[in-house]
Amino acid sequence: MTVTLAIDCMGGDHGPSVTVPAALDFLRADRDARIVLVGRPEAIEPHLGTALATFGERLRIQRASEVVAMDEPPALAMRNKKDSSMRVAVNLVKEGEAQAAVSAGNTGALMAISRFVLKTLPGIDRPAICSTLPSMRGQTHMLDLGANVDCSPEHLLQFGIMGAMLVAAVEHNERPSVGLLNIGEEDIKGNEIVKQAGELLRKSGLNFYGNVEGDDIYKGTVDVVVCDGFVGNVALKTSEGLAQMVATFLREQFSRNLFTKLAALFAMSALKGFKRRVDSRRYNGAALLGLRGVVVKSHGSADVFAFEQAIWRAAEAARNRLIDRISERMMERERSEA
Amino acid sequence: MTVTLAIDCMGGDHGPSVTVPAALDFLRADRDARIVLVGRPEAIEPHLGTALATFGERLRIQRASEVVAMDEPPALAMRNKKDSSMRVAVNLVKEGEAQAAVSAGNTGALMAISRFVLKTLPGIDRPAICSTLPSMRGQTHMLDLGANVDCSPEHLLQFGIMGAMLVAAVEHNERPSVGLLNIGEEDIKGNEIVKQAGELLRKSGLNFYGNVEGDDIYKGTVDVVVCDGFVGNVALKTSEGLAQMVATFLREQFSRNLFTKLAALFAMSALKGFKRRVDSRRYNGAALLGLRGVVVKSHGSADVFAFEQAIWRAAEAARNRLIDRISERMMERERSEA
Repeated sequence: MTVTLAIDCMGGDHGPSVTVPAALDFLRADRDARIVLVGRPEAIEPHLGTALATFGERLRIQRASEVVAMDEPPALAMRNKKDSSMRVAVNLVKEGEAQAAVSAGNTGALMAISRFVLKTLPGIDRPAICSTLPSMRGQTHMLDLGANVDCSPEHLLQFGIMGAMLVAAVEHNERPSVGLLNIGEEDIKGNEIVKQAGELLRKSGLNFYGNVEGDDIYKGTVDVVVCDGFVGNVALKTSEGLAQMVATFLREQFSRNLFTKLAALFAMSALKGFKRRVDSRRYNGAALLGLRGVVVKSHGSADVFAFEQAIWRAAEAARNRLIDRISERMMERERSEA
Repeated sequence: MTVTLAIDCMGGDHGPSVTVPAALDFLRADRDARIVLVGRPEAIEPHLGTALATFGERLRIQRASEVVAMDEPPALAMRNKKDSSMRVAVNLVKEGEAQAAVSAGNTGALMAISRFVLKTLPGIDRPAICSTLPSMRGQTHMLDLGANVDCSPEHLLQFGIMGAMLVAAVEHNERPSVGLLNIGEEDIKGNEIVKQAGELLRKSGLNFYGNVEGDDIYKGTVDVVVCDGFVGNVALKTSEGLAQMVATFLREQFSRNLFTKLAALFAMSALKGFKRRVDSRRYNGAALLGLRGVVVKSHGSADVFAFEQAIWRAAEAARNRLIDRISERMMERERSEA
């Protein structure tokens, strides 16, 4: 199915030197896709080679004169940079010229701009950020990851619906299981908000598993883990920190002396297999859910391979009617409550 | 310095088969320590061998007829089991016959019993659970880990004081740095409670670093990480889940085929060194802080080595005047505010 993606080429730590090659790799692999590269043409063109000729109408550049800095306050980026690559990319989704936007830029600014330009879907109070994490059984989707620090039970319920629809769209799993992140399995655990959210989820018609704990994220107990943005962000960053420490210690041990260095060579195949399974680049691309359009946020430090994964996620969500699925579900909910 | 420790021998997944050998190993290594083994003599004695004769007055058994089950509701354990090994061990601390109690039993029951028997220190509203985690620079102490799901800014400040005094006592670091777990470094990040807690901590006279994020736990950015019990519990459990997944994947990769199995043999020294550095058993033993006595909680699944670490932590805290340090600090605070 044809899909057109708008790429914010200027965002992220590396800008066009990563985003453009990733977009071209994606175009080579997905022959039904089209890409609009958004940003300063003079920054984009040096990375294109003969791509414009090769891909013909499947690839074009959309000029945007400004760039949102990685540490720029979202409110300022919104007000002062109406011609930023980020804003122009999201505008393309709004205008129907693209079915999804992908950016490795400033998360807060991307959320603020997407919310302002695209608006939220009917029945959704707040958009949420949903990431994919590796698990023992495959992958776990978790939201919110930091967009909302204070959440009501109703917000958590909406996150559950949005997460379930995302998994239905991108994993073709029509009844994904949903767990509520808590500090114990029993219904009586947790604070008041989480307890009430549990009641709403139980009555929601979703495939609600019940409470899950932090370790269930990686056990793969459920497809979707729901939490407020504060807790989700801490869980995600804690995982990043632990993974970095583990990788550092492993590297240190294998470079301790000549013998361990030789052992590392000998163990290369196993170590590479291990690295592949926990490679966070494979899971790059968080969905901004609850908007009237698909927006995917790549990690700012993504390399070409990682950024391409974020583009794949965006294409998958757009092709599998993510927005329609969420809005249909919200309408059903409204009808059943009316 | 002489110290007497009361060991709840019946708690944990393994009971006396783990707790008794760990206590004996500890007695062999620490010649100034005394141990009171609390529980059913008929369950303890088979694991003693000739220890009673060997250690003489350094070792004795204190009979307790009941056992708190791992899944028993804390309120029931409190009300109905006044002669549980857990309660009797904490009573020994209360009566001054021991300077610390160690238990691998039910966390909720241990907290409820300790709070009821020992009471909180003046100025402390709620006790907290403080764990030690490995970091790139050594170790990080984190609290609360689950005792308090809803915390006020004042509670978080008290956790900061208690955590700092613990590090002062057990690591001989008189000005430990304290960080507030948040979802960004800037002071304006986070919810209202965390922002206000930041203000209190800045004015507290503690060596306050400011906000830290989840990855800072493992980077070792600060000595003490302060958070509410919900967030702390999720961060801890998430880490446990990720560590288990990493260990499983590593094992799987090295047992993939004959070649990788040989590689594992060849890489044994490096893999063992790695395992040692991230071995959670070395960090076993969470302190219940804010009480009028030292109580240390071991992981329920602890083995002999891990349980012995928890005993060492308890001895270290008792010998280095943990309780006096916290109460002196709280009195100073009261005076300066008066």
